[in-house]
Amino acid sequence: MSDHRIAPVAAHEPPYYAVVFTSLRTEGDDGEGPGYGPTAQRMGELVKEVPGFLGEDSAQTPGGLSVTVAYFRDLAGIEEWRQNAEHREAKEYGRAHWYERYSLHIARVEHSHSFQRAETNVTKGG
Amino acid sequence: MSDHRIAPVAAHEPPYYAVVFTSLRTEGDDGEGPGYGPTAQRMGELVKEVPGFLGEDSAQTPGGLSVTVAYFRDLAGIEEWRQNAEHREAKEYGRAHWYERYSLHIARVEHSHSFQRAETNVTKGG
Repeated sequence: MSDHRIAPVAAHEPPYYAVVFTSLRTEGDDGEGPGYGPTAQRMGELVKEVPGFLGEDSAQTPGGLSVTVAYFRDLAGIEEWRQNAEHREAKEYGRAHWYERYSLHIARVEHSHSFQRAETNVTKGG
Repeated sequence: MSDHRIAPVAAHEPPYYAVVFTSLRTEGDDGEGPGYGPTAQRMGELVKEVPGFLGEDSAQTPGGLSVTVAYFRDLAGIEEWRQNAEHREAKEYGRAHWYERYSLHIARVEHSHSFQRAETNVTKGG
């Protein structure tokens, strides 16, 4: 989640799934318990172990919204990640301490394509 | 797109659609033609006129990725927006001038929920 990639996750062959997490943070950590940054980094590593995980894009406007999109091959991977004990604990802590608001969307990707400057554009799906 | 909302778009009743646009910009505007900022702002206004448009969340890490998620009630709205002449012109210009890379995902939302601190949590969908 804190991994600022230099390139968006490329389009895969549909169907697959996108988990969109859009959040607004509270005013900083409260200085107790686990910090947001280290926890987000740990989660970003942990999710890579989930079967069918395809990648994750994240952006944060300073003082504003964060949008993270994680891609999975199927719902089974999303369910496994949802039930991961360490992830559940982090989410519970996050609701209590870090998040003012958030929205979560689980969506089935039906079409996707990627563009890359000055190289071949790749189009997948329909 | 440049509208930094103070709250994420809330969950709607599925099914509906999410258009996820993840991009990496080139190094600044080239000083010619339309600017990125004004164009993004114009597109953000124009998309609101599309029937079935439900809202848009956007975040940008300075010097890094931008992630924009627009929500539509159905594919017809997405298609109308895709074919909008002014939008097409902006996209074409963007590929030529503004974007190093991008990925676009059109995905059918099957589950969504929203969380809001210290108020009733809303859960929709399944």
